[in-house]
Amino acid sequence: MPPVVKTFDYLVIGGGSGGLASARRAAEFGVKAAIIEESRWGGTCVNVGCVPKKIMFNTAMHAEFIHEHKEYGFDVELKRFDWSVVKKSRDAYIKRLNGIYESNLDKSKVERIVGHATFTDDRCVEVNGQKYSAPKILIATGGRPVFPNIPGAEHGISSDGFFELEDLPKKVVVVGAGYIAVELAGIFGALGADTSILIRYDQVLRTFDSMISTSVTHNLESGGVKVKRKTQITSVTKESDGSLTLETTTGQIAGVTCLLWAIGRVPNTDNLGLDKVGVELDSHKNILVDEYQNTKVKDIYALGDVCGKALLTPVAIAAGRRLAHRVFNNESDLKLDYSNIPTVVFSHPPVGTIGLTEEEAVREYGKEKIKVYTANFTPMYYAVLEQKGKCSMKLVCAGPQEKVVGLHIVGQGCDEMLQGFSVAIKMGATKAQFDNTVAIHPTSSEELVTMR
Amino acid sequence: MPPVVKTFDYLVIGGGSGGLASARRAAEFGVKAAIIEESRWGGTCVNVGCVPKKIMFNTAMHAEFIHEHKEYGFDVELKRFDWSVVKKSRDAYIKRLNGIYESNLDKSKVERIVGHATFTDDRCVEVNGQKYSAPKILIATGGRPVFPNIPGAEHGISSDGFFELEDLPKKVVVVGAGYIAVELAGIFGALGADTSILIRYDQVLRTFDSMISTSVTHNLESGGVKVKRKTQITSVTKESDGSLTLETTTGQIAGVTCLLWAIGRVPNTDNLGLDKVGVELDSHKNILVDEYQNTKVKDIYALGDVCGKALLTPVAIAAGRRLAHRVFNNESDLKLDYSNIPTVVFSHPPVGTIGLTEEEAVREYGKEKIKVYTANFTPMYYAVLEQKGKCSMKLVCAGPQEKVVGLHIVGQGCDEMLQGFSVAIKMGATKAQFDNTVAIHPTSSEELVTMR
Repeated sequence: MPPVVKTFDYLVIGGGSGGLASARRAAEFGVKAAIIEESRWGGTCVNVGCVPKKIMFNTAMHAEFIHEHKEYGFDVELKRFDWSVVKKSRDAYIKRLNGIYESNLDKSKVERIVGHATFTDDRCVEVNGQKYSAPKILIATGGRPVFPNIPGAEHGISSDGFFELEDLPKKVVVVGAGYIAVELAGIFGALGADTSILIRYDQVLRTFDSMISTSVTHNLESGGVKVKRKTQITSVTKESDGSLTLETTTGQIAGVTCLLWAIGRVPNTDNLGLDKVGVELDSHKNILVDEYQNTKVKDIYALGDVCGKALLTPVAIAAGRRLAHRVFNNESDLKLDYSNIPTVVFSHPPVGTIGLTEEEAVREYGKEKIKVYTANFTPMYYAVLEQKGKCSMKLVCAGPQEKVVGLHIVGQGCDEMLQGFSVAIKMGATKAQFDNTVAIHPTSSEELVTMR
Repeated sequence: MPPVVKTFDYLVIGGGSGGLASARRAAEFGVKAAIIEESRWGGTCVNVGCVPKKIMFNTAMHAEFIHEHKEYGFDVELKRFDWSVVKKSRDAYIKRLNGIYESNLDKSKVERIVGHATFTDDRCVEVNGQKYSAPKILIATGGRPVFPNIPGAEHGISSDGFFELEDLPKKVVVVGAGYIAVELAGIFGALGADTSILIRYDQVLRTFDSMISTSVTHNLESGGVKVKRKTQITSVTKESDGSLTLETTTGQIAGVTCLLWAIGRVPNTDNLGLDKVGVELDSHKNILVDEYQNTKVKDIYALGDVCGKALLTPVAIAAGRRLAHRVFNNESDLKLDYSNIPTVVFSHPPVGTIGLTEEEAVREYGKEKIKVYTANFTPMYYAVLEQKGKCSMKLVCAGPQEKVVGLHIVGQGCDEMLQGFSVAIKMGATKAQFDNTVAIHPTSSEELVTMR
């Protein structure tokens, strides 16, 4: 055991989006901060999440445009798609980002500690045999994909493995109905893999507004992805040629070259020695925190995916920064408001959603107090195309003022469309205030301010 | 002369966006309305404006994606671009729209009158020898592109002519620095024509925020369009091979196969017999109206491009509908608020703008009361590309509350990004309210809520 415990004002465990943001913001207040990471800087988002995913989404978008060139007058021959081209530059880009995170930490004078952290009995944190302590400690260790407990599950990969693929697999089965399953199945499908998505019920994105679930399920199918409903895998066998045979509740699927589990994520709360300090977990092993990100232990905080709530990069960042302001800048009431968090799903086409689904609004306000406006149209982009893409929109309004309590959109361009509406909704916008805004023509977004 | 004057409650001259919207809304209130159009239903927007322009913008976007396929892993050979393919389906689409406008008028029971309208001495409107009258008359005859008064100007075309082109011209000169010049030059350039834009000063879009002018001028050049500054054409000669030779203040340009004037638009106020009823014009021949769209003559209204203010389809539509509500539904205070009208320019990449430019805000509030936030970044789309596109953003905030009085953006996706922010700004959003909204990652739009 080393004789000296290194001490800081603020010790952050986990160098992902939330931890990095909190440590750097704390350092701005003159705090001596350190951050511990056992893998690559940037966490899930940068390495195996948002960033590489978005690049693959853009790749898939190219594939879609290629199909549409001809009707726009371009006689184009696609000779070959080489997954490794974009994989290589994607990896290089992420490596650059890892480096930028490192140098940003250095510029902020946040000490970088590399290795696995565990709490010790004396409320220190040990990394590679060295002990560290700080009056304030943040746990932001994130989460990881879960594998099911069935025979042969290990022959599949998770979203982490997706980003290691060196080639487009020929025959893909994605398991799951959440946004990760939808995004990755959409990418595989658009790039030309024989792709199936296996779901337990009838639709994907079942926690979203029903318009979104219906549209996205439909769009997967019209994009060539086979949606296998009410289907669960019972066992996986690896054949001598390396392919997988899946036994499912609705029959056998053979010749699978890539099985991808996207059935959920679990928090990284094992092996942290949390029991040593008394940090409490819920039944899903998420760290229990209050609205100020306080764990049950004084001066130990947690935020981001490790808390299992609103697993989104900007949520972790916002919570991390606010925590730094609260703890180190005397802004004692500052906390993140977890209501009206906007989210985009990079399906094909993308989804944007904020606030209550229609179903939730009816439960919360009563059916007679809810007014719903919808639009369903063909964006002008498809005017000259045989296959018409659709854009669907829904505004959920509540009360006599018709306050907009939910906004749900799916269609080309919806990814960049949502942010501004989120500001308005967060401000408490009413339907009349939407209507009072002059439309921008010709866009899809204008439909949101011209609904009747 | 026919013996009988046909009478209506509401007579609308001009079947463009504003006139159609006003006539149909009035009809909803049980008003007997008629609308007069001498050309195609839908006016400038549908036939020679927004709609076909957007389709050509999308066509140009395809051309840009083709350049970027390779770095996204697609080995693609472009064999040929055939302008006539998209021209044909564009024309067919517009014809469908013309038909939809007609049938919508029929469904609304608005009488369609085809021909040129002129006021008569007895406050009637004559079309093809038939007289019509109504207690309330709306003039919404729009505008048209202007040609300069120089020798040979007639050898050029206007934006109207752009939409008649059957092929991509080889060598194009676009004259003008406004948004129409920028959009059309961008389309020609992206599609591979040898394109120059001739401007009188140093930058295009000079009435926009300086960040926008600078970016768009730069983007034109990096997209391969030659920006010829401080250059004006003095004469045009048509050569025996059909090509044009332009004499300019900075030298000769020969071999031009398409000269396009985009130097401004004038209102359609000639040949309407306005003098017969006393409707007054300003020095540019725009109809003078007050904020309620009243001309100087009682019960004769005007709106849209013919008034020369905010020449935008949604402005005309909004003004037209509000006028119908005011005049025919007793909503006596209803009028269009001309402040904070959002606009998009479909340049490559597009521009979005609302509110005051930085320069205007400084003039209005004083420099010390203005705080400006900017962002200038490479969107993730370009992460894997050699040639990095940029996105630039500016928030102009005023007063101690930092009310957002101007928002200016240029970059990929900005066209669909602006509408939501317009709602927030129209509601009086402050910088703090922007900051209080959780970002959506990874998008470009999130930069607008994370500026420091």
